[in-house]
Amino acid sequence: MAGPLSGVRVLDLTRYLAGAYTTMILGDLGAEIIKIENPDGGDFSRQVGPFVEQTSTYFLSVNRDKKSVSVNLKNPDGRALILDLVEKVDIVVENFRPGTVARLGIGYDQARKRNESIIYASCSGFGQTGPYSKKPAFDMLIQGMAGTISITGEPDQPPVRVGFSIGDIGAALFLSTGILSALHKRHQTGCGEWVEIGMLDAQVALLENAFSRYLNTGEIPKPEGRRHPVATPMQVIETRDGYMCLAIGTDEQWQGFCHAAGQSGWATDARFRTNAERTQRRDKLEEMLREVTQTRDTNDWITLLESRQIPVGPVHTVDQVVDDPQIRARNMIVDVEDSKAGHLRVVNTPLRFSDSEVGPSRASPDLGEHTEDVLREILGRTDDEIANLVASGAIG
Amino acid sequence: MAGPLSGVRVLDLTRYLAGAYTTMILGDLGAEIIKIENPDGGDFSRQVGPFVEQTSTYFLSVNRDKKSVSVNLKNPDGRALILDLVEKVDIVVENFRPGTVARLGIGYDQARKRNESIIYASCSGFGQTGPYSKKPAFDMLIQGMAGTISITGEPDQPPVRVGFSIGDIGAALFLSTGILSALHKRHQTGCGEWVEIGMLDAQVALLENAFSRYLNTGEIPKPEGRRHPVATPMQVIETRDGYMCLAIGTDEQWQGFCHAAGQSGWATDARFRTNAERTQRRDKLEEMLREVTQTRDTNDWITLLESRQIPVGPVHTVDQVVDDPQIRARNMIVDVEDSKAGHLRVVNTPLRFSDSEVGPSRASPDLGEHTEDVLREILGRTDDEIANLVASGAIG
Repeated sequence: MAGPLSGVRVLDLTRYLAGAYTTMILGDLGAEIIKIENPDGGDFSRQVGPFVEQTSTYFLSVNRDKKSVSVNLKNPDGRALILDLVEKVDIVVENFRPGTVARLGIGYDQARKRNESIIYASCSGFGQTGPYSKKPAFDMLIQGMAGTISITGEPDQPPVRVGFSIGDIGAALFLSTGILSALHKRHQTGCGEWVEIGMLDAQVALLENAFSRYLNTGEIPKPEGRRHPVATPMQVIETRDGYMCLAIGTDEQWQGFCHAAGQSGWATDARFRTNAERTQRRDKLEEMLREVTQTRDTNDWITLLESRQIPVGPVHTVDQVVDDPQIRARNMIVDVEDSKAGHLRVVNTPLRFSDSEVGPSRASPDLGEHTEDVLREILGRTDDEIANLVASGAIG
Repeated sequence: MAGPLSGVRVLDLTRYLAGAYTTMILGDLGAEIIKIENPDGGDFSRQVGPFVEQTSTYFLSVNRDKKSVSVNLKNPDGRALILDLVEKVDIVVENFRPGTVARLGIGYDQARKRNESIIYASCSGFGQTGPYSKKPAFDMLIQGMAGTISITGEPDQPPVRVGFSIGDIGAALFLSTGILSALHKRHQTGCGEWVEIGMLDAQVALLENAFSRYLNTGEIPKPEGRRHPVATPMQVIETRDGYMCLAIGTDEQWQGFCHAAGQSGWATDARFRTNAERTQRRDKLEEMLREVTQTRDTNDWITLLESRQIPVGPVHTVDQVVDDPQIRARNMIVDVEDSKAGHLRVVNTPLRFSDSEVGPSRASPDLGEHTEDVLREILGRTDDEIANLVASGAIG
């Protein structure tokens, strides 16, 4: 079985994370990803550790399964190759700073002249328009500028960053939906189009509930630390040997918890009867809870509460997640073979299909590993032509 | 101009956030979303505040633009209506607990018998298979079980939750890409299929870099508080009147920062020359930096550093984001008209297309607002038939 995007060909001009994650999503779904890299070192993220042998595990994790073609975009013959490839692909994805691809002669308008049905996708920090469009962006800035940091961390403490690059990845996920929606439209109309996204806008879209609360009530969301803003007790709490997540969403679950915890008096305590009352008095409630939750180990709490249908779970570290029976059963960690480092492990796509096979099968490519194959097989270049391109510095 | 998914019809059996966000994404891209709700109160999230008049802004934010059809799934005539609708739509999305839709007679196998090209999408906490598949899930549990909480917060402090529902929303974004990839495949083959996702798996996929580091080096990622794990200084830091995000990714930017800050001595200090050295000594470096960054207001730092191409930004609260010139220029906050509450504001889709119009245009529907229209126009039911369905309790 092949992936649902089998037969779809993507010209990948991206670097760093947001762009690379976009084409990884498409690749995991079966698309052929032709990643263009600078012959002089390739994607910057190849230099980011940690390394196994000489393989960057950072580069690997989001570039598995791609083909690497090293083309010098500063060379006119190199740029001409890009436009030749535009004729042979369905989708172009790029995340240069706005204006760069047009200046290089490989922007949407130039690509469309060569392929009217091309779907051209651009990801940038702030989008192609607006006063910040030319500013550089990093995940850290996006998290700060979108409000993410302002609602994460302990109340009245310095703010903290979300511990993974949601600024990049959120944009990548949205852009993938945009690309695939344009692909549907192309099936209907025969025409492609340009779809673009800014990381800042994507991050704001992820914070929908925080913005909805503010926009319609004026209340400015604040960091809530370990707690959910409107349900109580839905939070991380101490146990004898660590922490657990309690996720009590209904009054029935609250009463069930009280009885399970041997605190039947709480179940009828008028101060804590409804979620609204528990939320209003949550400082006091948390203090009372903690005294009880600290009397048992996390695993004992989970066994006890699950037997009574009270939603509860551990606070797992990454190594514990990898060993979790559900993660194993879902085949979420898969092996890929790397030419230098041998056996490496990457995170699988979370999508499962009844009639398609998805997920990574190869490791990340060596820089330029597929240059000759792509030029020969997709562009029909001869050995002599390829040798000339190498001699002129157009390809690496 | 219409959206790229204009003409695509979605039968939306979802409740809560993960499912509702999935169909919101499709709706923002132009698909017609027919949301089925229990006549007895509708989607649970209609009861979640804050409210403006009687409209839940929580429900609004992810259910704008949908049609509401109230059908009682406990009633056999109600379930028959669902299967009749399956014949008239392209996509079904549901997020009941695994096994529920099959038991109701409206699962994938039953749907496929009525419409071979149906794309059927299921979202659940842990996926349709594996030992946890029947467990209930909440965003809080998913963040805990996937490792998200273990890498967010201050080092050596109790862990904190990411301040928005990334457990739900991450699954929704991935599922949307899965649905649209199946739509592409259907254009090629004429056949639909079942695509499913677990929130836990999706969350793990978002933490790709943390997992890649652990899987291939054995290092267990820990919370880094305000800092980026491998680049320094890329972090939140105090200013005279608050905080700013510094995002210094290269040694050149570090030197530029030192000169801008009037600390030319730092630029040549051998202890901090390379990123690796700065990261190794980051406790000391942060202490030195803070003494200097606290001497100016955030806005002054931003003006100064931006003039020298040093990546820097504010730590905005949600209200400041809404007023940001870039967010305004990108039209990220849009008005919708609500029947009861009047003018309400929601977050726009972050996607922009050259030849398609996207984003919300109406508010969320009243419960059952479109029941009669859909039955009459899509299913061709007569007034008498509709009256009988009301009388039997099949529709609300």
